[in-house]
Amino acid sequence: MAQIKVPVVRNILQANERLAAENRKRFDNAGIFVLNLMSSPGAGKTSLLEKTIEGLAGRIGIAVIEGDLQSSYDAERIQSKGVQAVQINTDGGCHLDGNMIQIALDSLDLSAVDLLIIENVGNLVCPAEFNLGEHDKIMILSVAEGDDKPLKYPLMFQICSVLLVNKIDLLPYTDCDMNKIRERARQLNANQKVFEISCRTGEGFAPWLSWIEEKVRGHKKLQAGKI
Amino acid sequence: MAQIKVPVVRNILQANERLAAENRKRFDNAGIFVLNLMSSPGAGKTSLLEKTIEGLAGRIGIAVIEGDLQSSYDAERIQSKGVQAVQINTDGGCHLDGNMIQIALDSLDLSAVDLLIIENVGNLVCPAEFNLGEHDKIMILSVAEGDDKPLKYPLMFQICSVLLVNKIDLLPYTDCDMNKIRERARQLNANQKVFEISCRTGEGFAPWLSWIEEKVRGHKKLQAGKI
Repeated sequence: MAQIKVPVVRNILQANERLAAENRKRFDNAGIFVLNLMSSPGAGKTSLLEKTIEGLAGRIGIAVIEGDLQSSYDAERIQSKGVQAVQINTDGGCHLDGNMIQIALDSLDLSAVDLLIIENVGNLVCPAEFNLGEHDKIMILSVAEGDDKPLKYPLMFQICSVLLVNKIDLLPYTDCDMNKIRERARQLNANQKVFEISCRTGEGFAPWLSWIEEKVRGHKKLQAGKI
Repeated sequence: MAQIKVPVVRNILQANERLAAENRKRFDNAGIFVLNLMSSPGAGKTSLLEKTIEGLAGRIGIAVIEGDLQSSYDAERIQSKGVQAVQINTDGGCHLDGNMIQIALDSLDLSAVDLLIIENVGNLVCPAEFNLGEHDKIMILSVAEGDDKPLKYPLMFQICSVLLVNKIDLLPYTDCDMNKIRERARQLNANQKVFEISCRTGEGFAPWLSWIEEKVRGHKKLQAGKI
């Protein structure tokens, strides 16, 4: 099985890299900063988007691409916040890829967009292997998932420049040790920025929103300098 | 991309079905009842195993196959409970398959085993597509993941004969609605057996342990009748 599978997966990854590079050029030409948001199912990706959109309203133009196996519940949740949202249904597929993003982009009016957030399929494994053309990969971990997740899913922690530890309001009711999460994540990725947040209570959102604003502004400046 | 990928995946699935059928024959000849345990990362698979092993100690001979991307933390946790455990490292692979189980079986002494539990890789998507030769597929959902999971990951709910809703001790601190989980799961799979449990407090374990004991006994009887 392994002998059959490996070369095929490699071809797919190479084809994906080409499409991701095309997406990246398109984002840069339009001056749009792009985040690829990943996590386990139920860690709080859509809730993070809702709260982030509220927090940045009127300051940054936002669009969202929603990835799900099926259904359009998440895109509807996002649209109700007054921003553009496109739903990709992977029809059972376990991750988004560069081609899906290319198709989704055709449905978005990018003229007033500063920040595009791509919510990947809920999966801590496969999405880590597929670049979409994003500038930063970011991940959410819910404290309810436990502090051993960096040990068990290291690739995701290695590739994400931001780790949002969500549901910190549940910490008193779990055995999760925040110091262990921080230390184990640091060993995998010493440059990773960590934010402790609660999408439910709004705790910890100010530094996260500042990080995004700084990134979006920095990206605009960089792209303007190139022209 | 889709045109490249689909036929290859089909070949892999067909090859897997053949291996799964061989495993099944082996389990049945040995009179062993086999469960394939799946969930998102951090829903509580290993904790369920620990509590289940404690609850069935001295009554049922248990062995465990642990699936992880890398590391052997989970197999060590299980071995410390005094049962045989083999670790499969998928080296980044997002699910177990029939071939991996075949190899792992060679490391187990099955002579005193009545029940084999296979803990799959933490992933609510890909493991659903690969039969391992098990008699029942079962899943855990943590209430912290939210009540929309049946809507978003329907295949897993459709194929699992048992749904264990875990971490019910966290219910008062989340927005998760147990009735919604039950109703949404029922619409996907009317025959699914649902157990509400907490691996942390031990709540709800008695009916779950009874279900296993009944299954193991029924399987032994069925296989004995065939000989």
